[in-house]
Amino acid sequence: MTLEVPAGLKLRPADRADHAAIWSILEPIFRAGETYCLPREVSREDALSYWAGGNHAAFVLEEKARVLGTYFLCANQQGGGGHVANAGFATDPAARGKEVTRARLAHALERARAEGFLAMQFNFVVSTNTRAIALWESAGFEIAGRLPQAFLHPAEGYVDALVMYRRL
Amino acid sequence: MTLEVPAGLKLRPADRADHAAIWSILEPIFRAGETYCLPREVSREDALSYWAGGNHAAFVLEEKARVLGTYFLCANQQGGGGHVANAGFATDPAARGKEVTRARLAHALERARAEGFLAMQFNFVVSTNTRAIALWESAGFEIAGRLPQAFLHPAEGYVDALVMYRRL
Repeated sequence: MTLEVPAGLKLRPADRADHAAIWSILEPIFRAGETYCLPREVSREDALSYWAGGNHAAFVLEEKARVLGTYFLCANQQGGGGHVANAGFATDPAARGKEVTRARLAHALERARAEGFLAMQFNFVVSTNTRAIALWESAGFEIAGRLPQAFLHPAEGYVDALVMYRRL
Repeated sequence: MTLEVPAGLKLRPADRADHAAIWSILEPIFRAGETYCLPREVSREDALSYWAGGNHAAFVLEEKARVLGTYFLCANQQGGGGHVANAGFATDPAARGKEVTRARLAHALERARAEGFLAMQFNFVVSTNTRAIALWESAGFEIAGRLPQAFLHPAEGYVDALVMYRRL
């Protein structure tokens, strides 16, 4: 997958001034509680700390200065596991279908490669999130593991979670 | 697996006074860099913060007031993943073969069950750690996933890591 940002879109590192836009995208996703393992009532501060704090490098995808989506990139483990990256993606619902997730994934893979990572791992893809799974698979990720009933979905009850992995 | 602490051994929550004993067990393990994803040069403070800080509840197994081993128990994820536990184990090399790991595992499983966890997951079992894998399998854990070359072993080079899982 080569880096292809659709015309008119721009991908750049996020800074503090983007936090309001990032939170406006994350809040409904985290409140829904269907895809990320965070408390549904997570505070703005804790959510932004999770997304863009610590060893997470956060990016935004924008169109005419409007943030359509965001992702973070980090090392999935330290020490002997430090060569495997991890990433998380979130999209403004109004922007879905614009290939904006694919653009961010391509950017994340390129960036991870450039930083010397040899693989990327998603630790916890909720099995009901079929749109994401199809996208990751189309980008070369394989299902490396299945965690039986590891996620309590607010509507579906206990569902499996997947570990997905691809070499870079 | 029922709770069976061999005669003469005692399992109890760790407190700050145990930190020296815990570090004396952890230090050679972390310095060797063969099983845990921490920097081999990790400081005492960071190592103890990892083992016994945050949401980790740490325990020690002792014999006549000498700590033979330690483990921690925590939730592996938050939110919709909060019903799956995680744990880590470390043993004084001089005490290996005394069933001390099995005693701690049994204690961890009981404790996790008592706290309402429905499963336990090990996120990253280095595939060369065959003694641990055999023990986890004998205790009902299954290999739920395999991460290709996800660990850089100081002697073996890139080796796979396993995700192991069992319901409680």
